Order: sequence, then C-alpha cells, then structure tokens
Amino acid sequence: MAQFTIGVDLGGTNLRIAAVDESGRILQTINTATEVARGRDAVVKEMCEAIRSLALKHHAAGTMQGIGIGVPGIIDMKSGMIRQSPNLPDWQNYPVKQEIERLLSTDVFLENDANSAALGEKWLGAGKDENDICAFTLGTGVGGGLVLNGKVWHGMTGMAGELGHITVDPNGHPCGCGSKGCLEQYASATAVKRMAKEHIARGGAEGLEKLSRDEANFSAKSIYELAMKGDPGAKAVYQRAGGALGIVIAGMINALNLPMYVVGGGVSNSWDAFAPAMMEQIKLRSFVYVATLGEDPTAPIVQRTVVRRAQLGGDAGLLGAARLPAVS
Amino acid sequence: MAQFTIGVDLGGTNLRIAAVDESGRILQTINTATEVARGRDAVVKEMCEAIRSLALKHHAAGTMQGIGIGVPGIIDMKSGMIRQSPNLPDWQNYPVKQEIERLLSTDVFLENDANSAALGEKWLGAGKDENDICAFTLGTGVGGGLVLNGKVWHGMTGMAGELGHITVDPNGHPCGCGSKGCLEQYASATAVKRMAKEHIARGGAEGLEKLSRDEANFSAKSIYELAMKGDPGAKAVYQRAGGALGIVIAGMINALNLPMYVVGGGVSNSWDAFAPAMMEQIKLRSFVYVATLGEDPTAPIVQRTVVRRAQLGGDAGLLGAARLPAVS
Repeated sequence: MAQFTIGVDLGGTNLRIAAVDESGRILQTINTATEVARGRDAVVKEMCEAIRSLALKHHAAGTMQGIGIGVPGIIDMKSGMIRQSPNLPDWQNYPVKQEIERLLSTDVFLENDANSAALGEKWLGAGKDENDICAFTLGTGVGGGLVLNGKVWHGMTGMAGELGHITVDPNGHPCGCGSKGCLEQYASATAVKRMAKEHIARGGAEGLEKLSRDEANFSAKSIYELAMKGDPGAKAVYQRAGGALGIVIAGMINALNLPMYVVGGGVSNSWDAFAPAMMEQIKLRSFVYVATLGEDPTAPIVQRTVVRRAQLGGDAGLLGAARLPAVS
Repeated sequence: MAQFTIGVDLGGTNLRIAAVDESGRILQTINTATEVARGRDAVVKEMCEAIRSLALKHHAAGTMQGIGIGVPGIIDMKSGMIRQSPNLPDWQNYPVKQEIERLLSTDVFLENDANSAALGEKWLGAGKDENDICAFTLGTGVGGGLVLNGKVWHGMTGMAGELGHITVDPNGHPCGCGSKGCLEQYASATAVKRMAKEHIARGGAEGLEKLSRDEANFSAKSIYELAMKGDPGAKAVYQRAGGALGIVIAGMINALNLPMYVVGGGVSNSWDAFAPAMMEQIKLRSFVYVATLGEDPTAPIVQRTVVRRAQLGGDAGLLGAARLPAVS
C-alpha cells in the first residue's frame, strides 16, 4: 500500500505543514503564521490539528508513515528537546517530540531546520543523485546540514552541521554565539546588510549610501540588485560574503571529500554576485577540490567535486522534514 | 580459527611491517629503512619479502586475513594509486594496490598514513570506546583522519581528512599546498621551528635565540622543553600552535559533533605547552563543544565532547594499517 508522511516546517514566523507522498509529491500544504506570542501550547495545538486534518484527508492515499518536524535551533536528539532557539524562546527544554507523539499517537522525528533542508535537497533537489552532501542555508543566519550515506549526520547529540559558526577570520566580527569571525557574520542576509553599512561608514560607497536612505528597501536583495548593476561597493560586499563561504566550503572539502556542496537559503538568490569569489577561495584553499576537479577531461564526472545552488527554494526544509520518517 | 593481518607503515624514512592478531597484539615487527633512493621497485620487493616471511612464520597462529598499507600522501581509493607523495616521489600514479595484490595473491588495503593512525587510535588507543573520532597527526606536516561508524571516512576519492590544510588565518603563512594560513603552517614540527625563528627575528626572544645557536638541537622538542622551563618566547610559539589547532578542532566539532577529537604525532608530546591555548579556542569558538561539555554534572559522560592526546605513539599508523582488512 502507498505511504505518505507529514512534514512540518516550524519557523519563527511561519508554520507550514504538508502531506507528502513517497515520491516527494506534495499532496497538500497548510500555511499559517506561527503565533509565537500566543505561546508554545497554542502553536502545538494548532500544529496537531493541522496534522490530524491532513492525515484524515489523505487517508485514502495510503498509510501515514510518521511526522517529521524541522525546527530552528539546537536539538538534543536523545531527549527530543529543543535546547536553544532564539526564535522560539519558550520552547527551550520542552520535550516537543514526546509531547506530539503523545498527542497524536504517531512517531515524530525532530530535526534542525537546516538539517531538514539538507535532507530535502538530497532527496529531491540539487543532491538527488548523491548519497553524501553538505548543504548551507544562507538566511537571517547561516545554517548547515550534512547528509552522509543518505541520512542526516547528527553527531553525538544532534548538533552536527553548525557550519555557520565555523571561524572564517579569527579576529573578525563578534558573533551572537560568543565567538568572533564566524561564517554567519559574513554570509547571512544580516551580515550582508551590516557589511554594506560598514562600507558606507568607511566612505566612498555612494551607490550603497543612496540605497540605504530607503531603509525599508535596504536588504540583501536590493544590495544584490545593485551589485548586478555593477556598483563597486555592493559588489565588494558580496565578494566578501562569497570569499567567507568559500573558505568554509574549502575546509569542508578538505575534511570530508564529499561529491557535492549545496548553497541554499534566501541569500543564495544572490549566487551570481558571490559565487565567483566563493569559487576562487575554494580553488585556492582546497587541493582536494583541485585534485577532484577532473582537470583530465576523460575523468568520470562522478569523481568531480560539485558546488552548486540549492533547487527547492523555500520548500527544502518542509520536504526534508517530510522525508525524516523514511530515513531516520 | 584465529586470524591475523599484516600492517605496513610505509614512511619516507622507515618501513615498518607487523603481523598483528585480531585483538591488536603485535606478533612480530620488521623495521627497515625505506630505501627511497633505490627506487620504488626495490622498496616494493623488500616489503613483499618481509610480508611473505611474516605470513609464513605466523601461519600456525591462524589465517592471514589481508594486508593494510599506510602511505604518506594522497591516495585515489578507486584506482588504488598514490596520487601525490612528496616523500615517495616515484610512486606517483603507481597502482601500488594492484601490484602488491598481484605479487602476493592477497587482498591489499591502501590508506593514507594519517587515516591509518586515526583508525589505530580508534581500535586500540584514545578512541577505543567510541565509534566516531576525528584524529590529528602533528608531525613534519599535519595530517588528519576521520573514523565514522567505526570505519575510516574516505569521502569520494579517499582524500577526506586533510585537516592540515584547513585555513586558520586567511592571510597567514603560505603553504606548500598553494594556499595561505593552513593549520599545517602553525601546528606542525616544521611550523614550530619556523615560528620560533620568526620570533627570534622580531627580537626580544633571548631564550629562543640562545637555543637556536645549536642548530642540531633546535627542534620542536627543545623548544617545548624551553617552554616548560617558562621561557616566554617558547611559550608563545606553542600558544600559537595550540590556538591554531583549537580553531580547527572547534570547526570540526561544530560541523560533526563527534564525541572525541584525538591529537597525536610527534608534536603531541608538547601537549602541556599547547593544550591550554587549544582548549581556550575550542571553548570560545564552538558552542557545540560548550553545549556538550556537560556543565550539568549529572549529565551522562557519553554526551561530553572529549579532546585528548593519542595513546599509541608511533605505532598508531602501523596498528591502524593492520586493522584495515577487518573494517574496509
């Protein structure tokens, strides 16, 4: 009999719930705002109601195999708790997995949102022909996820894949995590805006300065558009972002020698502005990349290291969450 | 029936061959100089003769299960070739695996020497109670190896674990690999000597300057001894080495969330001089480390991230090579 799962993308702003069949086809999606202000219990109640209604509605399509939930923050896999989540403050140390399992009498698989996105891209997106990928999600922050042998690599406690907090510049910009010079301080949407403001403050960045006067439209996206028009200041900002990302990707290539590295999240829409600087750093800093580039044109493509954009856009995390019951 | 394997540690200077039983007990070791100058074929011939004699001699102890060879350099697992080895120049693109299999009619498992050392430490040393470890070998250069689920993580072509070429300082010292600021430029024996000389050149490092007058005794070891006597210059050199290593370990903890990171190789004998700076950087730069430190004293020890010295000394690579036939 056919099977389907339910994926949940629990963001700080939006709550998305979808029934997804075995082939990755979305049967139905329910989108609501995550009413964080109404508190955890209200969000859980709404989530469970939506899950129940989807499960009931698609009952005819097959057996509901389980529920996967992607959450922003640090998860303790063992206890099924959210350890830390800036966007969901009152969820800390709440045994979300057990609670939802109790409420719905179904297996629940909890996962960090960037890990879910990595799994989604591996299942249906950029990495669908690979078993091993490393994925970055460049959003408000920078998340990461590793898929090894087709499964999310959790590490000891489920905290693996925190690629946004790898050091790029030991004396660099302070990070909310307590460290300095983390990737997140250069390759997130937040960082792009900050670097643009720093550039304006240093002077000589007329294009950026003009753009910044309309604060509502001063964003990673508008800075990207300016860069694509050739503005030197905006270009420099994205070159810095790409260079930082390239340093970390090079390190991951040297450490893991995976066949594919995927860059997703909102900032990945600015690919054309940051990818050249990223690739330059990767070639400089990873002899493993250079050795697996297949400079010999007769070398089989399977031995090449590929760095590419994500393909699923905003659905990566939702689809990855829906995949969790099948590969956990 | 009992089984044994033969491990080969093929270095640029020494060739060590051992028969090792299933429990990791070394039945016999043959040590010779690697006569690189006599050429590849002479070394292979000598190696095969030693393997044959060990296999014959310990025939009564059980079945010979296979041969594992650890080599310094970059290996292409698929073709069984050494892609690049500064210490064994004429071995490049030589199908060493097939050749030795042909000569001995036995399965041969080829592995990078640092990967072998990681596997040795996982089998019988610091990591013997863990399934997943990340190991660094601080020697003339800096090697690394990942053991995931009890096996060496090879990546796509066998080049995984090149931790010595992860960037520590984007604008740092040039590296032989073509990059700048690689870990190897700070945490190898070569780097310790270079940093000491740089310190002398900057002036004010009287202790180091005095030590350096006896070039034959000016080494990572003597600089360590000077540091342990309290010499500020020598201490600063090892603090730099430890800080660089800590940055890379922090990155690996954030990326992989493994339970254990092991530091071996000759420079690890200077542990007391570099470990404090290393731990300081790990705590600063890895919130995954901090979160898994188990600050709650009732937390089970299994959830702690441990960073410790290797335990097998110079035998790690040899024992790891001997383990290859059983876990490949």
